[in-house]
Amino acid sequence: MLRLSSPMGRGFGRLRAAMNADLSELPVAVPGFRFAGLSAGIKSNGKPDLGLIVADRTCAVAGVFTRNRVKAAPVKLAQRRVKPGRARAVLVNSGNANACTGAPGMEAAKESTAAIARALGVDASEVIPASTGVIGALLPASRIVDAADRAVASLAADGAADFAQSIMTTDQWRKVASLRITLGTGAVVTVLGLAKGAGMIHPDMATTLGFLVTDAGLSPSLLRTLLKQAVDATFNAISVDGDTSTNDTILAMASGHAGSVRAGSKDAKAVLAAMTDVLDALGKSIVRDGEGARHVARIEVSGLRTDRAARTIARTIATSPLVKTALHGKDANWGRILAAAGRAGVAFQPDLAEIRIGDEVIVRHGMPVGKEAEARAALILAGPEYTVQVRLGEGRGRAHYLTCDFGPDYVAVNANYRS
Amino acid sequence: MLRLSSPMGRGFGRLRAAMNADLSELPVAVPGFRFAGLSAGIKSNGKPDLGLIVADRTCAVAGVFTRNRVKAAPVKLAQRRVKPGRARAVLVNSGNANACTGAPGMEAAKESTAAIARALGVDASEVIPASTGVIGALLPASRIVDAADRAVASLAADGAADFAQSIMTTDQWRKVASLRITLGTGAVVTVLGLAKGAGMIHPDMATTLGFLVTDAGLSPSLLRTLLKQAVDATFNAISVDGDTSTNDTILAMASGHAGSVRAGSKDAKAVLAAMTDVLDALGKSIVRDGEGARHVARIEVSGLRTDRAARTIARTIATSPLVKTALHGKDANWGRILAAAGRAGVAFQPDLAEIRIGDEVIVRHGMPVGKEAEARAALILAGPEYTVQVRLGEGRGRAHYLTCDFGPDYVAVNANYRS
Repeated sequence: MLRLSSPMGRGFGRLRAAMNADLSELPVAVPGFRFAGLSAGIKSNGKPDLGLIVADRTCAVAGVFTRNRVKAAPVKLAQRRVKPGRARAVLVNSGNANACTGAPGMEAAKESTAAIARALGVDASEVIPASTGVIGALLPASRIVDAADRAVASLAADGAADFAQSIMTTDQWRKVASLRITLGTGAVVTVLGLAKGAGMIHPDMATTLGFLVTDAGLSPSLLRTLLKQAVDATFNAISVDGDTSTNDTILAMASGHAGSVRAGSKDAKAVLAAMTDVLDALGKSIVRDGEGARHVARIEVSGLRTDRAARTIARTIATSPLVKTALHGKDANWGRILAAAGRAGVAFQPDLAEIRIGDEVIVRHGMPVGKEAEARAALILAGPEYTVQVRLGEGRGRAHYLTCDFGPDYVAVNANYRS
Repeated sequence: MLRLSSPMGRGFGRLRAAMNADLSELPVAVPGFRFAGLSAGIKSNGKPDLGLIVADRTCAVAGVFTRNRVKAAPVKLAQRRVKPGRARAVLVNSGNANACTGAPGMEAAKESTAAIARALGVDASEVIPASTGVIGALLPASRIVDAADRAVASLAADGAADFAQSIMTTDQWRKVASLRITLGTGAVVTVLGLAKGAGMIHPDMATTLGFLVTDAGLSPSLLRTLLKQAVDATFNAISVDGDTSTNDTILAMASGHAGSVRAGSKDAKAVLAAMTDVLDALGKSIVRDGEGARHVARIEVSGLRTDRAARTIARTIATSPLVKTALHGKDANWGRILAAAGRAGVAFQPDLAEIRIGDEVIVRHGMPVGKEAEARAALILAGPEYTVQVRLGEGRGRAHYLTCDFGPDYVAVNANYRS
């Protein structure tokens, strides 16, 4: 029972209908955790900009961070604090990315987490920071210091929706997904996901933040392993424009209230599947939430020697401006798809290439099937969500990538963002 | 004395003035060569679509071809025929790329070059083909067979302009550049360059074709070396949208009428410099000739450990949609430049980063200089051509990349090309 707050998930009709749904039907309470979201005055428009997730007691934590060489201060601090695998709280601010801010930026990150730690009565090293917003401007730590007591006072078991609201930048909707599963022990486990990020890039760089909270009992090392696997299959296979942010962060916390899960067990697999499904739903919602994006395409590449080779090709197709503009134009332009595959730097047999849009084969043996097949494929491309399958040989390597189309609005938004 | 037919070269004011200049002032005759350009009926609109360059006798030839795994039939055939380093003629058609056409496509390429060879009275293996145009449609070889005698009959020493016209697809102007230099021996050598390609991608993939013709006497191996070096510094450092074509081809022919040049000599260096300047001018003209492109930016990256590392970063910046849309918006958005550098997969010290737009420093020690510097930089970004310097450390590795901005027209043209 995967529940969603916004246009994402498996069936697209249902999702768009749920676009502005409230979260009342969603299981957002996770035993062992409280949430808050409020205004601290970081955003000049007064909207919520401070989010807090607090575990009742120290719990397992794991993180996946941007691979960009240019890392914001909160990312560097979070990487350090996540290492021991134990934490109490996650502090998020929107409105300021605290990136490219040098030593003062690191001071500001430390000062704001210290203030929250004092208000909670825990050690500062147990508070993990994340920031999103304008880059190159110093985080006004004093605003967070001033709001710390208020933030802690407003923590509530049902505060996840407020939290989701507080981390938004130019998101058009809150991104919340959750799933309840029953383990072999009979225990019921909740996996709640909260994210922000818009397909296109308003605040300089489309920072993606994601938070997974579960009451499953996972050791720090198991949580780390599961998070990495779930992220690889979801958030690491999303492309909007190929650019990555200085602040991208995904954190997971596990309270253990629902009983412990052993590595390698069936229950661990079930938790991994739930984490993956929740992140997948959030990722789709992010891709879809973009100015000008009308279509979400799942690029599936198969037939290569290795999964890695397939992934390289899937990424090259998914980030090709020519492919993405063709998707915008509902044009079954197999030539661009094939040429993008061809420049990925991976060996394959062009003569064996087969391309399908949905169920419609438009290329077989490296040659076009014909205009009629392309016309039928164009009808599929008119839909909000579809699959593009690219088969490039006999190998068993396969991978997928989620992408969206490139419309004129994308350029307009990004050319004029700061002016 | 670099002469140009179109908006390219060093000084931009001069170039734009020359935009629609005729070629009468350009030294386009090269001893030992004749040229033709005519209509063979491959393009449905009746415009010229068949070009021919013929050497009076067998001469040195070298080629650089697309690295795309999906190669058009003419590319495969040309690669094979260029290998011995000797040839008599180059046959180019526009209007049809003869790509993704399987075995019949290879037959069509062979048949059309054989017809030209018969008309010239030479061996078919001495005729190098190149094609550009729609992909996935079989080349109508019979049209070329029918036009072969007419093509040969129209060859003329001053036919370069006709040739340049015949290879155009959606180019807005012919791309011709030439240079005359005097060698140490007193001999005068001409290097003539003819190219096609538009910054943005009308006929599916913006195929780039380039042809260098000189009367210098170069051995096949020296010609190959010089061509590779000249292309690496010019056409291989151009990005419009990161996509490469199935048909990209650059061919060079050297007749030797001006006397021979030895490898490693000063004269060889002078010829290399001339070839590089001519290709540089043609490359700029291609970048500039795009729907919606208003600015040409030279991205210069330095301070890395190796040239290769610098090139990787320069390419990542030059192909970033976020950077390119910012350039369109005349926005000195250093955050996007720095973030693009950071995701290139190359180690550098963000704290040492310095970014200049023209002479204006906007980032120093990894941090923004301030709003006033960015405002001054924005004035520079309003110009048609400028340099973006990115210094990322103390190393000696450096590289550059030529790119253009991404405007809404780019998306409009590419989304609607086939519909």
